[in-house]
Amino acid sequence: MSYNLISLKESISNVNGFYCDGVNVGLRTDSSNGDVGFIRSDYPCDVSAVFTKNRFQAAPIVHFKKYPKNFQTNFLLVNAKNANAMTGERGIKDIEEIFSHLPKELDIKNPIMSSTGVIGVPLDKSKIISSFEKFDFDAKNATNLAKSIMTTDSFEKEICFRVELGTDEFFHIAAVCKGAGMINPAMATMLCFIATDANIPKEDMDELLIESVDKSFNTISVDGDTSTNDTVILLANRASKAYNKEAFKEALNIIAKELSLMILKDGEGANKVVAFEVKNAKSVEDAKKASKNLSNSLLVKTALFGEDPNWGRIASTIGASEIECDERHLQIYYDDLLIYSYDEPVLSKEKEEKATKIMKKSSFKITCDLGMGDKSFVSYGCDLSYDYVKINADYRT
Amino acid sequence: MSYNLISLKESISNVNGFYCDGVNVGLRTDSSNGDVGFIRSDYPCDVSAVFTKNRFQAAPIVHFKKYPKNFQTNFLLVNAKNANAMTGERGIKDIEEIFSHLPKELDIKNPIMSSTGVIGVPLDKSKIISSFEKFDFDAKNATNLAKSIMTTDSFEKEICFRVELGTDEFFHIAAVCKGAGMINPAMATMLCFIATDANIPKEDMDELLIESVDKSFNTISVDGDTSTNDTVILLANRASKAYNKEAFKEALNIIAKELSLMILKDGEGANKVVAFEVKNAKSVEDAKKASKNLSNSLLVKTALFGEDPNWGRIASTIGASEIECDERHLQIYYDDLLIYSYDEPVLSKEKEEKATKIMKKSSFKITCDLGMGDKSFVSYGCDLSYDYVKINADYRT
Repeated sequence: MSYNLISLKESISNVNGFYCDGVNVGLRTDSSNGDVGFIRSDYPCDVSAVFTKNRFQAAPIVHFKKYPKNFQTNFLLVNAKNANAMTGERGIKDIEEIFSHLPKELDIKNPIMSSTGVIGVPLDKSKIISSFEKFDFDAKNATNLAKSIMTTDSFEKEICFRVELGTDEFFHIAAVCKGAGMINPAMATMLCFIATDANIPKEDMDELLIESVDKSFNTISVDGDTSTNDTVILLANRASKAYNKEAFKEALNIIAKELSLMILKDGEGANKVVAFEVKNAKSVEDAKKASKNLSNSLLVKTALFGEDPNWGRIASTIGASEIECDERHLQIYYDDLLIYSYDEPVLSKEKEEKATKIMKKSSFKITCDLGMGDKSFVSYGCDLSYDYVKINADYRT
Repeated sequence: MSYNLISLKESISNVNGFYCDGVNVGLRTDSSNGDVGFIRSDYPCDVSAVFTKNRFQAAPIVHFKKYPKNFQTNFLLVNAKNANAMTGERGIKDIEEIFSHLPKELDIKNPIMSSTGVIGVPLDKSKIISSFEKFDFDAKNATNLAKSIMTTDSFEKEICFRVELGTDEFFHIAAVCKGAGMINPAMATMLCFIATDANIPKEDMDELLIESVDKSFNTISVDGDTSTNDTVILLANRASKAYNKEAFKEALNIIAKELSLMILKDGEGANKVVAFEVKNAKSVEDAKKASKNLSNSLLVKTALFGEDPNWGRIASTIGASEIECDERHLQIYYDDLLIYSYDEPVLSKEKEEKATKIMKKSSFKITCDLGMGDKSFVSYGCDLSYDYVKINADYRT
């Protein structure tokens, strides 16, 4: 079956039956962006979610999990500046109290919440509740929503496809997301909310969401830390009668991939995005381990920042990964340039110049061919700059 | 049995029958320090060694391992600025060729080598061979030796004890060491040479060396990377007839611990040394994993640099460690100050001020009491500053 993906602006605003907005209630010290946002649907939505693997899951995640399996919702509330994590029973009670102030006329069922910000500080409930006076619950303003969840992000992140199956047969899938520091391959520290009006069965939602997260958010790393709040939520209200699994899958995968690369590009203080491909490994586990170690290595990250074609740090990280490898079979490439092989370990002046040129690009690929088997894995990382240290040394102030 | 440990200056110079020195042959661009050094003994030495777990072991390590088990040596050559790693067969042949130029009259048996510096560049053999003309092979100049192995180190590291067992019964144990960046708990990226004149049996050498390395160099982390060249070598020439296992063990443990803390203090761009104690864990593995993750976390390290008592990053790292833990049982202390417990997650202004004061110290302890069992582990880390990024972005230039 043939279908077309048409890219649209203003993400979730385009999805039938969904409304969204963001307002500023004073959680931020400045008022440049909103700090509380919502997604509302005219119809009850099925929900699929992927959460952080951190053992200390934030209160909004614990609250979500209290609903029965396969519950439906029509309202999602989000806030920035406070993660509502490590706040104990109080954190969950605070969410319940906030929701008790939702306007009755909206007929909200099973509201859910998502938070990002500082750990270990109770929510400022009255400020968050005050957003209910300020929201236009019938607004379709996805950019405001995307801005209201930004923390150290420097730009808002949203994306939308209109998926055309036939002349009058189409559905939408759209997402907003945030994330900058604390991004880790075990599940990027980020929030991502995906809304669709496609007539998708619940089992497809679960299957396709997990698959797309594994191929996108779980392959990126800014600093190797996994937060207490990581969340990807897919809401389906079925306002459209159209659906096709292949088409939905492709759109969802592109959305997740694009958003995860946006997060990486916006990594705290990062200047370049690098793909670390480990190929011809003995096992996928080996390839994954080495690839993720490369994207997390401080020495590799600082060499990227210094634009220093010091392949020794790449080799050393591979060697330290406790995987099956042998320096006689190893080959290292920067894009298509062979920069290390056992027969030619020494970098010529000419190659060094070529490598330096590649490293100056805003994105490029480092490939380690282990020559041990036929398994491979790609993960994505960024450089570590002075600004990363500055942003994170001063985060709370 | 009672014994005394007397601390002496000039480390290996004090050990009977050992000679050492360092000279500059132009491997460094400046001539502030030497770049090639040696340790020589009048008597053949037994050797115990602990090497890096990196799969790509540098040529000097491969060369060492070619000798038969329990070989004896009376000569160790060291150089800075070039790791002789990832240099293939050529790297080993280069070592053999260098050794073929050693003065015949020294009667050298089974010489060994150790290198530190850039990976993937062949040794400048002629410069290294030229050191044999410059060395005074009967010198006892341990400080010159310590300086000749410095890379990004900002001070030389040496230590010596005279161990007195009785009025006329004593032996010496002394060490020089280097290390700054690339320090990792899996085996600190460093070189450490320990010389003793004690009449120690070979089996005690092996047993006590492994034990002391596990408790010292393997508990420190500057940046979580493990180099291709990590080496700890213990040389025993038995020039003294004295020996006592307990006394030797204590002296060796203190030496290894002190040197490893010196390395940490000298961590690239580091300003403070922090002990991360994880206690009351369900297993030693859990305690070790969490403790090492804390000392390697970029977010924890930058918070230390910013002197920000953001215990949420400590908690988040514990939670992300894939260990048995529960936020209801967790307690976090900065020195003796309880900064998080489930009953009191919110930091009072007063506690925050106290915590900030503790964080301004050049060394302090962060304790995470998991409340899950009775096992514990301590590892040591340092902060991550702008200077770390600067040093490592520009390392080769």
